[in-house]
Amino acid sequence: MTYCLAIHVGDGLVFCSDSRTNAGTDHVNTYSKMHEFILPGQRFFCLLSAGNLATTQVVVQRLRQDLETPAVRSLWTVTSLADAADYVGWVSSDTQRLQASRDVANTLFEASFILGGQIGGEAPGIYLIYPQGNYIHESAEHPFLQIGEIKYGKPILDRVVHSEISLEVAARCALVSMNSTIRSNLTVGPPVELSLYRTDTLQRGRYLMLTEADPLYKGIAEGWGAGLARSLEELPRFDWEIAPNQ
Amino acid sequence: MTYCLAIHVGDGLVFCSDSRTNAGTDHVNTYSKMHEFILPGQRFFCLLSAGNLATTQVVVQRLRQDLETPAVRSLWTVTSLADAADYVGWVSSDTQRLQASRDVANTLFEASFILGGQIGGEAPGIYLIYPQGNYIHESAEHPFLQIGEIKYGKPILDRVVHSEISLEVAARCALVSMNSTIRSNLTVGPPVELSLYRTDTLQRGRYLMLTEADPLYKGIAEGWGAGLARSLEELPRFDWEIAPNQ
Repeated sequence: MTYCLAIHVGDGLVFCSDSRTNAGTDHVNTYSKMHEFILPGQRFFCLLSAGNLATTQVVVQRLRQDLETPAVRSLWTVTSLADAADYVGWVSSDTQRLQASRDVANTLFEASFILGGQIGGEAPGIYLIYPQGNYIHESAEHPFLQIGEIKYGKPILDRVVHSEISLEVAARCALVSMNSTIRSNLTVGPPVELSLYRTDTLQRGRYLMLTEADPLYKGIAEGWGAGLARSLEELPRFDWEIAPNQ
Repeated sequence: MTYCLAIHVGDGLVFCSDSRTNAGTDHVNTYSKMHEFILPGQRFFCLLSAGNLATTQVVVQRLRQDLETPAVRSLWTVTSLADAADYVGWVSSDTQRLQASRDVANTLFEASFILGGQIGGEAPGIYLIYPQGNYIHESAEHPFLQIGEIKYGKPILDRVVHSEISLEVAARCALVSMNSTIRSNLTVGPPVELSLYRTDTLQRGRYLMLTEADPLYKGIAEGWGAGLARSLEELPRFDWEIAPNQ
């Protein structure tokens, strides 16, 4: 499995992904699931991938090849983020179709993606591209998108993420959501990649690759554990704890 | 769906369940999923149920019928908690077999249960009974069990639950885990039932049925949200926030 998420706040975009791939519990590997496509000063894209690794590798390879091929639709020629999502969705579903055409074992070649970024003076945004190639975008009411093993890390996002938090606070939320998932599910694992894109910069922003031993990652994991314990301690008491004779 | 959990700490046992049942999104109802079987001074059982409602209702009815039938295996005659789990597992798989024998549409009649309690002077404990009728128990390293929609509420349990916390702290953990699940998933809903069994009492303990409007439930939900926001605020900063010229 995999866990990737993106958050869109007023200051910009946060992308976060784990690096564990597994084909069975005895075939576990580490692969990056974060892929950036940057034309400095003109356009910035970050793609997060989940699903069949052979599919996602071919999709990323085709996206890069198309950049080098003149007169072909590519991330350098798409006219909007929605157009970019549509293009990636087409490459993904076409790749899955090609993989399935060689298969005799009903294998699942599905892949999902989160694509976010900014094109010129347009507003930045994030899109979730389904295995079928169709896609949805975030909204002010729901400013985050997730793919892969999404349930463990959702409650923290549901409670604290909204469009007005700063880019750094959003990045810490993403790390907490990721760390909670890694603690609860073996198929999601470090290192964790984190990318912070600030609106209108149109270039690569802050990027971190965090191992479990990284002092920041450890500090956030331990600080969050201590914060939860303190929050639990401060919750309202039951009636009988306040008035023991009740 | 459903979410039920039980926690075993030094002081006793906590049981917590939601009350939402749904057969499609336009067929949503409220049913209790917590069933107590108590022979005061001799034995205490609490059963939590998830899965097909027709199956779980028949299972609970058969468990109650067996109590009234002399010379039949029942929760009053089982000799240990493991024996009780085995008995419930048998009733459950037998009920599923009976339901399936009338079915022509490959319907899923599966149900899972958590059974916990204490028999006489034996140690209290909790068991998870799978749809197949087999079962596992908790351990000192893993003192909680969950059935139904378990992922959203697992991270908080993984981080803060251990055998040494008090019964009331464990009950607050259960409420937070339940509230997080209810916020993130529509198929889990209030009212929330909570039962606290104190070791060696062999009678019904504290029991609460909490609606969303209940001041304690609201206080815990709001207190937890505020605690998370504060915990997030207190996490370590990124290097560039501490030394902006870096």
